[in-house]
Amino acid sequence: MKLLRVGTTGAERPALLDADGTLRDLSALVDDIDGSLLADAAALGRVRDAAAAGGLPVLDAAGLRVGPPLGRIGKIVCIGLNYHDHARETGAEPPAEPVVFFKAPDTVVGPHDTVLVPRGSAKTDWEVELAVVIGRTARYLESAEEGLAQVAGYAVAHDVSEREFQIERGGTWDKGKNCETFNPLGPWLVTADEVPDPQRLSLRLWVNGELKQDGTTAEQIFPVGEVVRYVSQFMTLYPGDVINTGTPAGVAMGHPEPKPYLRAGDVVELEVEGLGRQRQEFKDA
Amino acid sequence: MKLLRVGTTGAERPALLDADGTLRDLSALVDDIDGSLLADAAALGRVRDAAAAGGLPVLDAAGLRVGPPLGRIGKIVCIGLNYHDHARETGAEPPAEPVVFFKAPDTVVGPHDTVLVPRGSAKTDWEVELAVVIGRTARYLESAEEGLAQVAGYAVAHDVSEREFQIERGGTWDKGKNCETFNPLGPWLVTADEVPDPQRLSLRLWVNGELKQDGTTAEQIFPVGEVVRYVSQFMTLYPGDVINTGTPAGVAMGHPEPKPYLRAGDVVELEVEGLGRQRQEFKDA
Repeated sequence: MKLLRVGTTGAERPALLDADGTLRDLSALVDDIDGSLLADAAALGRVRDAAAAGGLPVLDAAGLRVGPPLGRIGKIVCIGLNYHDHARETGAEPPAEPVVFFKAPDTVVGPHDTVLVPRGSAKTDWEVELAVVIGRTARYLESAEEGLAQVAGYAVAHDVSEREFQIERGGTWDKGKNCETFNPLGPWLVTADEVPDPQRLSLRLWVNGELKQDGTTAEQIFPVGEVVRYVSQFMTLYPGDVINTGTPAGVAMGHPEPKPYLRAGDVVELEVEGLGRQRQEFKDA
Repeated sequence: MKLLRVGTTGAERPALLDADGTLRDLSALVDDIDGSLLADAAALGRVRDAAAAGGLPVLDAAGLRVGPPLGRIGKIVCIGLNYHDHARETGAEPPAEPVVFFKAPDTVVGPHDTVLVPRGSAKTDWEVELAVVIGRTARYLESAEEGLAQVAGYAVAHDVSEREFQIERGGTWDKGKNCETFNPLGPWLVTADEVPDPQRLSLRLWVNGELKQDGTTAEQIFPVGEVVRYVSQFMTLYPGDVINTGTPAGVAMGHPEPKPYLRAGDVVELEVEGLGRQRQEFKDA
């Protein structure tokens, strides 16, 4: 299923994009698309059955904002340098074990919302990513297979990053990853049954129409199941948590000087195979 | 006011500890102690008036669990190496600007709840801290005075840390800061009007009855108002966000070998002047 949330910020309603591309209202069936829904197999089953029966009310998509496809996000765990080609372009050795950092859930916006270039920023950068949404409480998992089994679904994430704040201002990466609007998510949460192999998805990102990233999750150093297993050794994952699994090569930081960092007026489009497409206009904060 | 939340995990009710030490039920007045209450001056005023009038129902404290004094926490921003004496003991130079990392809100437990030593941990460490609770949306603040004005209240935080996960496992500190139960908070949220100078508070921590940390917030490299101003340049702070402002000297990592890291059976007690006292028994995860 392709689950989504539509409406004004903070007042999104749950919806479903059905097999023929019609937007259907789920608000009579579920309160929200969130961790408690994803952990509730019976409720998900009712949604699936209603969609198959074809009786869900049609929503007019015209003019309707698409919000992030997940509400009440608990935490967003991010994996750094998780693609062989991206590690090479940054000049970093491939990490021996996953690099972990965080984005706060309040950085999440819809897939087509405006993204703000922070004040004082000279190095705002793009990163297309495969986001993984957790469906079950996971701690101390023993295998990558078990890790993959905790995944309720997938979405496109834009892990917007300010490289000076991230790398040159002391301390950890979090400082350059948590500026407001820095995590567009969506348009859809695609349930895991529709993504048979998360390690065979292409990812692409364009800036002002020019293709900048053109990768595949086959290049991930630590695949999705292993990432979930690994993270669960250090923290408990809960339904509705998100993992941004890293970005392939092609970010601004990986370009020769002068590096083409983002500025107000730039338009970024990005997609992950089967998970939909985002488009953001950048403005000054 | 001393605000708190009492009851079983996930079902805490809002309460107030009045001037003569009596526990009063606030559940008829407010839904919860959370960011929306802290941002609502009128609602806080009603609580204050009701407390002054003396008519709030008395709660029997006997046998009642004290939960974290804040619900629906948005994010927990942590400041590393923020005390001159702690920076010295770790062998680090005092940072030129604040070191920022994150704890996920799901690490928060009550002040007397059990803390779990993670599986595979050999270096679980303690850190008594002054936690700051944000009461207003704050972005791009211009002065430390303005920073301090965003603070709704203060609490004791225990920033439990796994040093091997934090420092020796690659990547950022977050990996050693987000194990389950790693952020006991409370017992009280003390409103800012009762803390005239947050830079003159003593902090103490004992392990199995032995005094290990005995510091003062006067040693903070970046005082509370400056921390809030600084953080607001990189991310937006919202009502109900928490900042753990760092720990003074005396952590296990600062001891000579063999360093006395925490193990199951250890008991840690900690307090910040005027903000109450915590006590945790450590068990294996």
